[in-house]
Amino acid sequence: MNPQESSPGPSSLIALDWGTTTLRAYLLDARGTVLATRAEPWGIMRLPAGGFAAAFDDVVSALGAVDLPAIACGMVGSAHGWIAAPYCPVPAGETELAAALAPVPDRRVHVVPGVERRGERPDLMRGEETQIVGALALHPELARRATFVLPGTHAKWARVVDGRVHDFATYMTGELFAVLRDHSILGRPARDTEAPSAAESADAFARGVRAATGAPSGLAPLLFSARAAVVTGAVAAAASLDHLSGLLLGDEIRSALATAGPPDALVGDPALCARYARALALLGHHDVPVIADAAPAGLWRIAVHAHIIPA
Amino acid sequence: MNPQESSPGPSSLIALDWGTTTLRAYLLDARGTVLATRAEPWGIMRLPAGGFAAAFDDVVSALGAVDLPAIACGMVGSAHGWIAAPYCPVPAGETELAAALAPVPDRRVHVVPGVERRGERPDLMRGEETQIVGALALHPELARRATFVLPGTHAKWARVVDGRVHDFATYMTGELFAVLRDHSILGRPARDTEAPSAAESADAFARGVRAATGAPSGLAPLLFSARAAVVTGAVAAAASLDHLSGLLLGDEIRSALATAGPPDALVGDPALCARYARALALLGHHDVPVIADAAPAGLWRIAVHAHIIPA
Repeated sequence: MNPQESSPGPSSLIALDWGTTTLRAYLLDARGTVLATRAEPWGIMRLPAGGFAAAFDDVVSALGAVDLPAIACGMVGSAHGWIAAPYCPVPAGETELAAALAPVPDRRVHVVPGVERRGERPDLMRGEETQIVGALALHPELARRATFVLPGTHAKWARVVDGRVHDFATYMTGELFAVLRDHSILGRPARDTEAPSAAESADAFARGVRAATGAPSGLAPLLFSARAAVVTGAVAAAASLDHLSGLLLGDEIRSALATAGPPDALVGDPALCARYARALALLGHHDVPVIADAAPAGLWRIAVHAHIIPA
Repeated sequence: MNPQESSPGPSSLIALDWGTTTLRAYLLDARGTVLATRAEPWGIMRLPAGGFAAAFDDVVSALGAVDLPAIACGMVGSAHGWIAAPYCPVPAGETELAAALAPVPDRRVHVVPGVERRGERPDLMRGEETQIVGALALHPELARRATFVLPGTHAKWARVVDGRVHDFATYMTGELFAVLRDHSILGRPARDTEAPSAAESADAFARGVRAATGAPSGLAPLLFSARAAVVTGAVAAAASLDHLSGLLLGDEIRSALATAGPPDALVGDPALCARYARALALLGHHDVPVIADAAPAGLWRIAVHAHIIPA
């Protein structure tokens, strides 16, 4: 797992993190060390001619690894993906995920299942379960009990107990921000202005986080306050989207802290994780560590468990 | 005010409820009785050639009332309207509104100001203040102390004390539903299906209301549950928008009941009010009365207070 420990061995596994907008491919050696990577804009919603198989063959050729076994996670396993991989019920960890891999016919690819919680408030993840397995591989000290935050279009807060995802909740914060920015009255003021300064931006974001976390009644009445704040001059039009981002992120954190408890690590894109870390710091949760590049580590662990490659 | 009391007198006031999408014009007699009405799709965002003045002249001619004084409320008084009417700070009632009317040059039109609340969570209304004045004119027994709900794109919950709006909160529920339906992952399932039956629709709506009002942590984690409910089969794709509507409306009501208290009346469009009444009934607040057509009554009251027409 650790490239500093010794020189890498021969390539032995292709690991694919295949989401809605991007295909990330990794060539790994037998211990999970990353030997080479490729990233293509071939998410499952914008595949090249020839579809999944053509995209796969192309990226595998580019890695020079045509005959290796492969493992994939993410929306590639959804109903709109290459093959519909199942959802494992919580609690689920690398053992359960490895046992439910979905093989793609005619290619040496196995697709990692997602994880679901049924009941009154059903929830789903697909891709994040592999990142969590990877984060635990990179930081085994967190395996006994930890809360992971995985920012994104559909951000997840997941509680891990004894190495398995026991519970989780999805916050549509990223998508909500995008649709409100692009299609609601809240996005309008920023369209006709210059970009805010870094200080204006940070100040408006912090103001939004504080307003959301200080409000006992939730997001519903906060959204229009973002409009009223601009009309009354309390927030500059140029910084209105930072304010909105702070309101939405603050409300996510308020809600999640009340149920999942304080986070032990942020997992995912470093820039997005840094935004969450800033919001958490405003609320007294300082220096939450960021774990990047967890997907290849998770894919490798699940592949070993499934005996796709030797342990 | 009551057309049953006696035969109407001569026409004496043009009352305009002029919003973002629609212009509603009323011809009133000296006691506020509605003699004639016109509705045109000439909201302030889609005016005919000639703009506000042409729309006004056309609708006034159609009512056969060219020389009468006129009073208007709604977004016509916003920064994007005919003339920028002020916002009165809370508490505000017919006296404060009448004292701050904005006259339109070259026409005998006065525009009613909006109402604002400043402070940590600023808020605004423009048009609803006039409906509240009208609702109090139609139901004076509510003037001492009442909570009014005004459903709409930007729904308002307003607390009235001694005939004046003391406090209010805006819920962007209507706009949020529209942008999520049209632009997010949550609108997709319903696009490819037949319309649900009335029973399916009612059931999915009720399920959404209950899920939202039973959730202590607010809207943030509920939105994605609307997606997960469809993927896991808990809610039929055809009824997914009713479920989403229930979630959003339920969260508004949960939040508002915690701050404004139970509603005494719903004010506005009868079909939309009926939807709110159904959600409120699910939560034990049965038979909340609906007050329709409050705008002309409110415009008449403010006009009398401002001596635009004789009391």
